[in-house]
Amino acid sequence: MKKVGIIMGSDSDLPVLEKAADTLRSLEVPFEMHVFSAHRTPAEARDFALNAAENGFGALIAAAGKAAHLAGAIAANTVLPVIGIPIKSSTLDGLDALLSTVQMPSGIPVATVAIDGAQNAALLAAQILAVSDPALAEKLAALRREASGKVLEKDRMIAQKFNG
Amino acid sequence: MKKVGIIMGSDSDLPVLEKAADTLRSLEVPFEMHVFSAHRTPAEARDFALNAAENGFGALIAAAGKAAHLAGAIAANTVLPVIGIPIKSSTLDGLDALLSTVQMPSGIPVATVAIDGAQNAALLAAQILAVSDPALAEKLAALRREASGKVLEKDRMIAQKFNG
Amino acid sequence: MKKVGIIMGSDSDLPVLEKAADTLRSLEVPFEMHVFSAHRTPAEARDFALNAAENGFGALIAAAGKAAHLAGAIAANTVLPVIGIPIKSSTLDGLDALLSTVQMPSGIPVATVAIDGAQNAALLAAQILAVSDPALAEKLAALRREASGKVLEKDRMIAQKFNG
Amino acid sequence: MKKVGIIMGSDSDLPVLEKAADTLRSLEVPFEMHVFSAHRTPAEARDFALNAAENGFGALIAAAGKAAHLAGAIAANTVLPVIGIPIKSSTLDGLDALLSTVQMPSGIPVATVAIDGAQNAALLAAQILAVSDPALAEKLAALRREASGKVLEKDRMIAQKFNG
Amino acid sequence: MKKVGIIMGSDSDLPVLEKAADTLRSLEVPFEMHVFSAHRTPAEARDFALNAAENGFGALIAAAGKAAHLAGAIAANTVLPVIGIPIKSSTLDGLDALLSTVQMPSGIPVATVAIDGAQNAALLAAQILAVSDPALAEKLAALRREASGKVLEKDRMIAQKFNG
Amino acid sequence: MKKVGIIMGSDSDLPVLEKAADTLRSLEVPFEMHVFSAHRTPAEARDFALNAAENGFGALIAAAGKAAHLAGAIAANTVLPVIGIPIKSSTLDGLDALLSTVQMPSGIPVATVAIDGAQNAALLAAQILAVSDPALAEKLAALRREASGKVLEKDRMIAQKFNG
Amino acid sequence: MKKVGIIMGSDSDLPVLEKAADTLRSLEVPFEMHVFSAHRTPAEARDFALNAAENGFGALIAAAGKAAHLAGAIAANTVLPVIGIPIKSSTLDGLDALLSTVQMPSGIPVATVAIDGAQNAALLAAQILAVSDPALAEKLAALRREASGKVLEKDRMIAQKFNG
Amino acid sequence: MKKVGIIMGSDSDLPVLEKAADTLRSLEVPFEMHVFSAHRTPAEARDFALNAAENGFGALIAAAGKAAHLAGAIAANTVLPVIGIPIKSSTLDGLDALLSTVQMPSGIPVATVAIDGAQNAALLAAQILAVSDPALAEKLAALRREASGKVLEKDRMIAQKFNG
Repeated sequence: MKKVGIIMGSDSDLPVLEKAADTLRSLEVPFEMHVFSAHRTPAEARDFALNAAENGFGALIAAAGKAAHLAGAIAANTVLPVIGIPIKSSTLDGLDALLSTVQMPSGIPVATVAIDGAQNAALLAAQILAVSDPALAEKLAALRREASGKVLEKDRMIAQKFNG
Repeated sequence: MKKVGIIMGSDSDLPVLEKAADTLRSLEVPFEMHVFSAHRTPAEARDFALNAAENGFGALIAAAGKAAHLAGAIAANTVLPVIGIPIKSSTLDGLDALLSTVQMPSGIPVATVAIDGAQNAALLAAQILAVSDPALAEKLAALRREASGKVLEKDRMIAQKFNG
Repeated sequence: MKKVGIIMGSDSDLPVLEKAADTLRSLEVPFEMHVFSAHRTPAEARDFALNAAENGFGALIAAAGKAAHLAGAIAANTVLPVIGIPIKSSTLDGLDALLSTVQMPSGIPVATVAIDGAQNAALLAAQILAVSDPALAEKLAALRREASGKVLEKDRMIAQKFNG
Repeated sequence: MKKVGIIMGSDSDLPVLEKAADTLRSLEVPFEMHVFSAHRTPAEARDFALNAAENGFGALIAAAGKAAHLAGAIAANTVLPVIGIPIKSSTLDGLDALLSTVQMPSGIPVATVAIDGAQNAALLAAQILAVSDPALAEKLAALRREASGKVLEKDRMIAQKFNG
Repeated sequence: MKKVGIIMGSDSDLPVLEKAADTLRSLEVPFEMHVFSAHRTPAEARDFALNAAENGFGALIAAAGKAAHLAGAIAANTVLPVIGIPIKSSTLDGLDALLSTVQMPSGIPVATVAIDGAQNAALLAAQILAVSDPALAEKLAALRREASGKVLEKDRMIAQKFNG
Repeated sequence: MKKVGIIMGSDSDLPVLEKAADTLRSLEVPFEMHVFSAHRTPAEARDFALNAAENGFGALIAAAGKAAHLAGAIAANTVLPVIGIPIKSSTLDGLDALLSTVQMPSGIPVATVAIDGAQNAALLAAQILAVSDPALAEKLAALRREASGKVLEKDRMIAQKFNG
Repeated sequence: MKKVGIIMGSDSDLPVLEKAADTLRSLEVPFEMHVFSAHRTPAEARDFALNAAENGFGALIAAAGKAAHLAGAIAANTVLPVIGIPIKSSTLDGLDALLSTVQMPSGIPVATVAIDGAQNAALLAAQILAVSDPALAEKLAALRREASGKVLEKDRMIAQKFNG
Repeated sequence: MKKVGIIMGSDSDLPVLEKAADTLRSLEVPFEMHVFSAHRTPAEARDFALNAAENGFGALIAAAGKAAHLAGAIAANTVLPVIGIPIKSSTLDGLDALLSTVQMPSGIPVATVAIDGAQNAALLAAQILAVSDPALAEKLAALRREASGKVLEKDRMIAQKFNG
């Protein structure tokens, strides 16, 4: 199976991204995790992207805060689907990272998920790989049914407590 | 090849979405175009999503303005990758549609592109199909080289005019 | 008397919504509380809405955060008045939920109250039922007089302390 | 049948509000239209609200722009449901009116609809009256079916043109 | 000397407004403090404003949060200068109160100060009274000189520590 | 009578400020109009402010767009009340000018009115002078009655047309 | 004298950037103009930046809209001062480009000017070169005196017209 | 070597600015630190700016919060490059200071860095001085290589932990 690459702009983003790793692990999707900065290590970020398809990656996740250029810098150097996670930092509540990630110019898309949305980034990567992998698609559908079941269980608990 | 589904919440979004159709056509990616509203035809939107994988779709694009729920409503009923295009409407400059599309809760990702970013939505859909289709990946890479070439040609023209 | 339905997108919204329950209880308006997610349990949310009028509900309250589609998804499946409460979550201070709830397209209104405004949602539901229930209208008027009296008592206390 | 009151803060809001009048007329819901300003005619606005229930109104719609206080000023003087329409003016794209209308303090709800959302305000008023009027509820359901039919017709037209 | 009226929409605003009281006290400007809500005690708020000039007030300060209508409601009922303080509440960081206070329609100005800017509201009230009171103007000028002196003292301390 | 000073940061603001001049003229309040820039003519702006009280001014109005520092720069050099008008320019819809004008630090208030709110700035200046000028206060009250009358006339016209 | 490099992300930015060229020409500062895209021609953008110091540039100006990464991508590959101009595009009024340009992570500064602020970018570049070039500094000071003179002339014209 | 001037609007900004001092010290760039307020000590701020070039400064850094006028007030009185740091204060998350600093009118640029971006302000000042100081440019390049090395080390640590 193709791998998912998870790249963070700074190791301070790791606590958010561990949710992405957990999700991929639970789906048995292989992944690699890297720290590359669009601004501090532009050459390494570019090289990683240029070689990602050849190195067995099928989808890339890039997370960064503030003027979050990482996902765009990765996307500029590969035609693999690149998923961007805007990271909330100490000011502006993540709006800066969201706009810097999603408002990409024509020609170079970044598939943006919610601010700090690491779990959804992992699910989206898996959904992309699942387009040609029915077994993974079934795992994803099972995960959905499980999540749905949990909501309905909560509904029963609250109904018992409030609806007498 | 799997098809791309393009769904708009209202036929007034068609002028924006024609750029998506043009892009897919130029890449020879088959697609279907539909008008379904998350609020006015919720049953049809759901049924389309529930059957999309079985009906040969590999990726879905959903475009809507204001409280743009269409992409989320589609995504809730399929594990195919769903790409959301926030559409700018008469107030708030597209910010409402952007937040309504991208800030999805954990479990149901929407791959959001820029406001009115129809061309990038089509490219992203093609990139997703290209993960398991090297010929399409090569077409996308060629498109990139062509776009790059156009920028460099502009650079030469401006250099001639200004840099004497 | 017709019932009020209170639906939350996640049980993590319960602390906010208990104020709605308290308010309805104090007005002796019957209510039911449910957890349904527009995205994780779309079928159950839809079925609840489709049958709400027949099941004795007179007004529905739906609360959700982020890309808050729940109120709109409910409203799309009933002509009962639907009241939306945008819930503040970890980023963007509730602005995402506010815009996702209030900016509904023509045809499907959602009566939106303030971010985290659970008490006002309950009062609005009661005001709606009170249109054809003079006794409930009188209870609401009494509640207003009581709130007004409390403000005037605070005014006297502060006047005593500061205005000598 | 109870009447709907439509109040605008300035007669410059009339072009937006005519859509509300048209919608109520098509549903055969009686209504009255007024110009009262929360700031320029506070006494008349208050008196209208204080007497609205007694004068046969069942729901009130108030529209205003900028620091849009009208809906709140009306709501402070009646327990009838008050629907607020934020009006877009020459700056800030309606955000000022939206926040001034929706962010009401506990105790005095305003049922806020989208910026310039006059048609939805009228539909919401009708939905409120329909809680105790099954014939009106049926008219509203018919309107929904009609709107749904129009979307599906657009879908067929676009499918014919694009999906070959 | 004319008095300054300080009106708050809720006694929870008192901690912010005590800075206004302290400032007026230090300038020996007489003042009265009140709790009136534009929504919960509209009649009392209006009566206070209507009689304020006659009751010896020369300027009024009104503070409120969220859909902050209090300053506007006061201003609508007097031609005394009304100073509005937007109060930050639990969501939106005070932006809602700022826009609700400052974006007043033509005809009814509110002199708006910064979010939570109680000290400046008091200084502005004193500056207004000082237009016809040279002794108060001199006190205000002295306060400015004192504040200026404190900044320069800080400059010397930091210069000593950092500039060798 | 004391004069009102109207200062604009650029003569491109004149079309907005003519409404302030018209309003003051109609109230027979003497005024002077100036162009001084906080950034391009800082010395002249400062000198004007330093001497304004002595030169017979009773209130100052300062209008500027973008990083609108003019009102603050004037206020820093006088204890006369300074009214700030944020001017909408080609980007950000006036939000930049609003925040730059209203968010003044403790010690130096600017009485901020709505974006482009020149008429209200003039009325506020007149209200400030009227604190010690009962005849002017009566003129302002008359203007209010006139504005109120116009609203009620509009109400009658619309009532005739719509309320049968 | 060292040259200024002006780089635009797209030739559609040329009308804004011609003001930068005009300003540098009037100051007799040599410059070169280029079109390089951070996303469509990342290699060329990088190479230009890597060699800029050696090629005789003393300061670089980079202009881009939307998720404006160009200035950051240039800055990541040189220690020359890089000035960023956020360009307003069809949505969000330039806020996206502003935040994408200014909110750079620690280590890689971008000297950001106002949205569409091409003239100021050119002046800032000249001010940077003037730190070690007293003749250029004097030209800049002369330009300031000229701008100041124009404001004072406008003041006299308006004074004549309005101040009798 | 020319000095860098660091000016803060209030000594409460010192904790943020100490990072600027540390950075300059580590680069052996001489600097002076001052507290001057654009509003409380306008004369001292102006005099400092007017004499800065003559006093041996080569670049100035000005930091302020809220309606952050300090950088603009400094820039209005010198043609030295002025770097503005918007400081986050208790409301609006630094957006007010950012817009007040960056949106300068034509003629008077302020080189704005990220909210609370003191380290980058110091680096930018050093980069400006380095235009004519190759040894300083080499120190800056070395700092970049060091930062790059740290990122790559983090990458190795995370790779070891996650990529097995």
